[in-house]
Amino acid sequence: MIAIDWGTTSARAYALDHGGAIVAERSAPLGVQRITDGRFADALTSLCTGIGSESLPMIACGMIGSRQGWVEAPYRHCPADFSAIAMSLTRVQGTRLAIVPGLMCRDVDGVPDVMRGEETQVLGILSEQRAERSVIVLPGTHSKWAIAGASGIERFSTFMTGELYAILRQQSILGRLAAEGSDDAALDQGVRRSLRRSAALSHDLFSARTLVLAGELAAQGVSDYLSGLLLGAEIASALRWLERSGVKDKLEPIVVGEASLVARYRRALALAEIDAMPGPVKAAAIGMWRIAKQAGMVRE
Amino acid sequence: MIAIDWGTTSARAYALDHGGAIVAERSAPLGVQRITDGRFADALTSLCTGIGSESLPMIACGMIGSRQGWVEAPYRHCPADFSAIAMSLTRVQGTRLAIVPGLMCRDVDGVPDVMRGEETQVLGILSEQRAERSVIVLPGTHSKWAIAGASGIERFSTFMTGELYAILRQQSILGRLAAEGSDDAALDQGVRRSLRRSAALSHDLFSARTLVLAGELAAQGVSDYLSGLLLGAEIASALRWLERSGVKDKLEPIVVGEASLVARYRRALALAEIDAMPGPVKAAAIGMWRIAKQAGMVRE
Repeated sequence: MIAIDWGTTSARAYALDHGGAIVAERSAPLGVQRITDGRFADALTSLCTGIGSESLPMIACGMIGSRQGWVEAPYRHCPADFSAIAMSLTRVQGTRLAIVPGLMCRDVDGVPDVMRGEETQVLGILSEQRAERSVIVLPGTHSKWAIAGASGIERFSTFMTGELYAILRQQSILGRLAAEGSDDAALDQGVRRSLRRSAALSHDLFSARTLVLAGELAAQGVSDYLSGLLLGAEIASALRWLERSGVKDKLEPIVVGEASLVARYRRALALAEIDAMPGPVKAAAIGMWRIAKQAGMVRE
Repeated sequence: MIAIDWGTTSARAYALDHGGAIVAERSAPLGVQRITDGRFADALTSLCTGIGSESLPMIACGMIGSRQGWVEAPYRHCPADFSAIAMSLTRVQGTRLAIVPGLMCRDVDGVPDVMRGEETQVLGILSEQRAERSVIVLPGTHSKWAIAGASGIERFSTFMTGELYAILRQQSILGRLAAEGSDDAALDQGVRRSLRRSAALSHDLFSARTLVLAGELAAQGVSDYLSGLLLGAEIASALRWLERSGVKDKLEPIVVGEASLVARYRRALALAEIDAMPGPVKAAAIGMWRIAKQAGMVRE
């Protein structure tokens, strides 16, 4: 089978053998935003030629199924288990490709939240876990926290941590104070500030400026301090959300993503006295394999 | 006397008569960031020629006294009353100009906050108020909430509301969803969402996207919804800060600034069941007049 994690800026294709093991892998800057005039079929050919037979079934997850993607794969509502997701694949006519739906959930006020691609990662992680309730953290531009269990994905919450960091670093008065450099102590200082009871993000962010003005933060520490403030705000808000969702005891989130980001999250979570475990690196490929099996696209 | 509110992008000069009444006024795009090669003396001449005799005393407040300004006027620590501020004017050598210092305060964790220019507006408002404790709100790129009383300015807190709005609107995925338009209902919806107990700004901002995706917010409402979220977050955080500062009863903040912004703040405050009063429009000029009198620069 060919499984494709097809996002906004890049796409990564995996060839999986009959047991679901990855035998080949290729990535290309062929994300949805980079494909012009709807030339998705060409992109698929370019991505997959040579990594597996042309007769293999193909499955994709991520922004390829968004309104800006190839064919829209409508959101499934939460809770959603493997079978619900496997039954909702969207076939792309004239190809062997099926697209995994994104998920939508609603908070207590009825306000929607969405994910597209992360649901597949979560299912990839669940396959290696027991059926008990788990908390799964997926850091990124729009970080996701998901509560998942025997019934699949119960609910989730998005935090704009990565995007806020990028625009503050690149566009704000705070970013203009920053010099290149990394500073773990400044990261910790930012996380701690956002974890305190009286935290207030749009006020606390300004302290990146005032601490520099007062000579109490080096310009080389500004980036990590900002990152820490945003990460701490994410963790503090997510912990309150988990508590309201009835998740309190033995909270051991699984953090999945790029290694340096996972390390940063585990460091910040430790400051909130939370032990987090790293998840499997190829969670998306594992998730797509499980979904494809459930959908009868492949047989072990 | 000539009083100059000299900020980052523009400068506004007022000619005041012997009673402190404004008799002439002029503004120019001669803010600190727009002056190259330190040509501040030329800018002063260009700004003030013709609005008053050259022999008049001159006073300025705002970014002109910052490290990037003409001469740095060091921050005074809070609390700071009229006399403390009047005793700390920085004279610009070779001119008749004195610059009002900015203020610095520290929160319970010792983290600094700063203002430069707003302290003069607060003093301008106090002059029209009785000596009891007041809450003064100064909306802007970096909004300030100040607690002031008989002893002058006790403490204050900054919220990056205006700057966050600008960069989210111009640079983020949320801004790309927005169409031109104004929508009071969307503004109120954003304010209410940020005022709720379980508000979490970096999560709630994402709802500007999901509500559009779900067809529950029009593209024309995105800008005001974002503005409402940020404004509601400022108000919620400021109210907690006021409570920790012992300000609880009969809270009637005075909101000072550009008319449409004052109206927007009063509307949002009303959703938190807070009656706010508009302050005097020329608060900076009034404040500079009071400081100059206290410093003996002018006599009524």
